[in-house]
Amino acid sequence: MSTVLKGKPTADALDLDTSARVEALKAKGVTPCLAILRVGEREDDLAYERGALKRAEKNGVAVKQVLLPEDVTQEALLAAIDGLNKDDAVHGVLMFRPLPKHLDENEACEALAPEKDVDGITRGSMASIYSGKGAGFAPCTAESCIEILKYNGIEMSGKRAVVIGRSLVIGKPVAMLLMANNATVTVCHSRTKDMPSVVKEADIVIACLGRAEMITADYFTPGQIVLDVGINWSEEKNKLVGDVAFDEVEPIVDAITPVPGGVGSGTTAVLIRHVVEAAEKATA
Amino acid sequence: MSTVLKGKPTADALDLDTSARVEALKAKGVTPCLAILRVGEREDDLAYERGALKRAEKNGVAVKQVLLPEDVTQEALLAAIDGLNKDDAVHGVLMFRPLPKHLDENEACEALAPEKDVDGITRGSMASIYSGKGAGFAPCTAESCIEILKYNGIEMSGKRAVVIGRSLVIGKPVAMLLMANNATVTVCHSRTKDMPSVVKEADIVIACLGRAEMITADYFTPGQIVLDVGINWSEEKNKLVGDVAFDEVEPIVDAITPVPGGVGSGTTAVLIRHVVEAAEKATA
Repeated sequence: MSTVLKGKPTADALDLDTSARVEALKAKGVTPCLAILRVGEREDDLAYERGALKRAEKNGVAVKQVLLPEDVTQEALLAAIDGLNKDDAVHGVLMFRPLPKHLDENEACEALAPEKDVDGITRGSMASIYSGKGAGFAPCTAESCIEILKYNGIEMSGKRAVVIGRSLVIGKPVAMLLMANNATVTVCHSRTKDMPSVVKEADIVIACLGRAEMITADYFTPGQIVLDVGINWSEEKNKLVGDVAFDEVEPIVDAITPVPGGVGSGTTAVLIRHVVEAAEKATA
Repeated sequence: MSTVLKGKPTADALDLDTSARVEALKAKGVTPCLAILRVGEREDDLAYERGALKRAEKNGVAVKQVLLPEDVTQEALLAAIDGLNKDDAVHGVLMFRPLPKHLDENEACEALAPEKDVDGITRGSMASIYSGKGAGFAPCTAESCIEILKYNGIEMSGKRAVVIGRSLVIGKPVAMLLMANNATVTVCHSRTKDMPSVVKEADIVIACLGRAEMITADYFTPGQIVLDVGINWSEEKNKLVGDVAFDEVEPIVDAITPVPGGVGSGTTAVLIRHVVEAAEKATA
């Protein structure tokens, strides 16, 4: 029987700090504001947006929604980003990705003002994450993993961490953050041979390959801490599932985050804190 | 008895390609030019500079030396960098580091024009290395490791690689390059527990922690490939030694680079190739 590491207590603790900082900003006449830029009506964007709206409201953070049609042109998208860059009332921008295929996503990311990049999508933010130097924010989901570990008193220093997945959205940044916290980090991916034996070496496992319940009982050993970043729709089970086969892995390991209600639940709390930090910097 | 992987054959193979490209550029009236910016007279800077000058001459690449006194002001250093940025005859700039302590090294690095950053010191280059996207060059020593593996037909895909060291100059970039070549990469550092057992898991070991002969026989097992990036002066032995205790490790492993004459011998060849690539881009 393992501990189920829900994200909510971590998020609540972050909110406590965030909302106090929002009050301090408001006392100075500044209302922190997140702009959400969404192209089209993808179901997972909408779900995340609902969570972000709720979290912002809870913390007293304003939200400006910019909704563009699925067939928006690159020019119109860039104009919308430019408008948010120039709007002094907006402190952070969340742009949902992936963008529709006809758009140049790299160009759109780079168009965003670095100081408003609260989800770590610009090259400047990447340089900060990679080097451990500079003002850029990490992607919120990667940071949510670290916050959940910290909140639950799980030591990273000197521990072996295995990250399954090497994406720029989550695998690479969470590896860099774990390394910055003095973990000994291994990154696995589609070309890794005998992945179960590599994952078994870990004290902390971060699953973020984006494939439903791919990581099964044979990857695990007692004593491990498992953070499951995957959010996948299972046709078979007719519900959301993680990258880890929760039902068979939970009895083996020491602690595991559920899906939903785990890492994802911390993500919007990190997002809103980033917006508040950006507002503090803009006001300082 | 293991194979001693000297850097020279790799460097010679790189030079063969580079010098042909230099000829092609000269036929268009362009002579690729490396600027070397050195502050003071540090012995290891001077040693590397001699190697770079020789390599440049061998390949028909021009060198412009900018030598500043040890007590140069930040303003004078930035002015020198600005002058090189504006000089169209200069295609790449190598600035020796560490700079003397009174100077702001981060600011100096960022002052360099990204397209002339042939040793991967700017944040733009870091974002390229981290993301695998963009035009920035990797630090030459990190890339020399990869070139030596490739030249010697050592497969990286699916292999386990352990990098000992997490510096921005070598540990982090070589880890990213190995990952881009589909190795399963683990990064060890000063906080890693039981490092010998971690290193024993590797097919490929990159030692770059910068401490003389710290990595001893107990870290290794037969079949491993060892690249020793360290260059340290041993008072005891009165000669240059690597981070690996060569004499006791060489009989155990499959192949190992010597110090000197290993990874370092490939570095200037990569540097000069970067200068030529930068000249090609500037001319295109």
